[in-house]
Amino acid sequence: MNKLIVIKIGGNIIDNELKLNQFVQDLAQLNEPFVLVHGGGKLATDLANKLNIPQQLIDGRRITDAETLKIATMTYAGFINKNIVALLQKNNKNSIGLSGADGNLIVSKKRVENPIDFGFVGDVTKESVNISLLKGLLDLQLTPVICAISHDKNGQLLNTNADSIANAIATSLSSEYGVELIYCFEKNGVLMNAEDDNSVIKKLDFKLFQDLKNKEIINMGMLPKLENCFQALNNGVHEIGIINAANIVNYLNNNSNDGTRIK
Amino acid sequence: MNKLIVIKIGGNIIDNELKLNQFVQDLAQLNEPFVLVHGGGKLATDLANKLNIPQQLIDGRRITDAETLKIATMTYAGFINKNIVALLQKNNKNSIGLSGADGNLIVSKKRVENPIDFGFVGDVTKESVNISLLKGLLDLQLTPVICAISHDKNGQLLNTNADSIANAIATSLSSEYGVELIYCFEKNGVLMNAEDDNSVIKKLDFKLFQDLKNKEIINMGMLPKLENCFQALNNGVHEIGIINAANIVNYLNNNSNDGTRIK
Repeated sequence: MNKLIVIKIGGNIIDNELKLNQFVQDLAQLNEPFVLVHGGGKLATDLANKLNIPQQLIDGRRITDAETLKIATMTYAGFINKNIVALLQKNNKNSIGLSGADGNLIVSKKRVENPIDFGFVGDVTKESVNISLLKGLLDLQLTPVICAISHDKNGQLLNTNADSIANAIATSLSSEYGVELIYCFEKNGVLMNAEDDNSVIKKLDFKLFQDLKNKEIINMGMLPKLENCFQALNNGVHEIGIINAANIVNYLNNNSNDGTRIK
Repeated sequence: MNKLIVIKIGGNIIDNELKLNQFVQDLAQLNEPFVLVHGGGKLATDLANKLNIPQQLIDGRRITDAETLKIATMTYAGFINKNIVALLQKNNKNSIGLSGADGNLIVSKKRVENPIDFGFVGDVTKESVNISLLKGLLDLQLTPVICAISHDKNGQLLNTNADSIANAIATSLSSEYGVELIYCFEKNGVLMNAEDDNSVIKKLDFKLFQDLKNKEIINMGMLPKLENCFQALNNGVHEIGIINAANIVNYLNNNSNDGTRIK
């Protein structure tokens, strides 16, 4: 099986123009084929504020009403996606920006409105992903750059969690490729101590994860991400990394002391 | 040579949800492969107004400063493009939304700043278009839906005239397909009398065009469009139509009494 890397880039990198430029330059150096999934960053929130569109939160989770979906579509599928693609092209990495509607790449289900109506939010499964489209694009030497907007195949775009999209893509492509999934963010990896950026857990297996979870060492924000990681490994993904975006080249060359490898 | 239709849809249709829905349903019925190019509509101007971003005009022509480009990218490449794609998918026409940056589809040149600096505006030529990408996507049974944002291959997105993009795509694809180019708008065709929507010129050849131009019968807005049409015919496009969007199916089935056929 040929190797394929699925890379998720978080909002904190997207918000920082210098970091994003460097990250894209780094990606353009990679020899292995990859798929990039990006989140949204602050741009959508900033735009909503400027337009006086109130952002509803229930239990700390954002509600995607019609106006918020419009803003998400404009910023994620429009501004951020096309600028990342243009930067990759500048660095001679031929790429193509996609939402889940394009080529029916990601067909999601609108989240049930009970007990909370999250609005225009779509949930993905392994079956959501159009594997043959991604394979077709990769065969055309195109690097897919995917934003976190999916659709229901019935005319409705849906806001979707970017981590979940990366996970679903990595899992489904495991039938065709040896997939490595990498979450890039602004920290150096999964930390033993959230206050100490040098306390990176270098290698994490399920036993250690369970142990750290029971001891409440792994913080709340990281828990669902890691649960999803182990689910992805069970479903065929070869290896998962949680790393600092700045270290991607070194990490992939096994030259990095940072980053958490999950196997 | 296989037939291919290149369809340009104007802003007045995009602004009208009912008309756009009907138009997309009509497109989804077409048996021939097609490429759709869309303009912007009022959404960008509305958003600029809401954000208090002044729209500079020189000699009636819009200047694309950095903020205006951002809005154009969000609305054309984001909201409008992805909603058209989602509607096509709903109607079982598998489509893929693209800007000119995606797959280096359209590499344009930033317009020279002399005598007027139009800002981030790109001009296309026949050589701008990535023919093999479009052919590759059409071979994958995907209908390309293309917005009027191109790039300079050096990291810069550029606002570009949608008519010019449609023209460049039709011309360049003429090396691979028998291309019919159709401009869809809210009028019934090229009119002898701008006040009379029933005064459609059914057939227009270059001799008649020159004649009507000399007699100043063809209005100013239509002149550059028609000059470009005859240039496209000289460069290999088989046939061009200027029609009411509502008549597209009948026009393509030769059942319409409306529309201007240019040969």
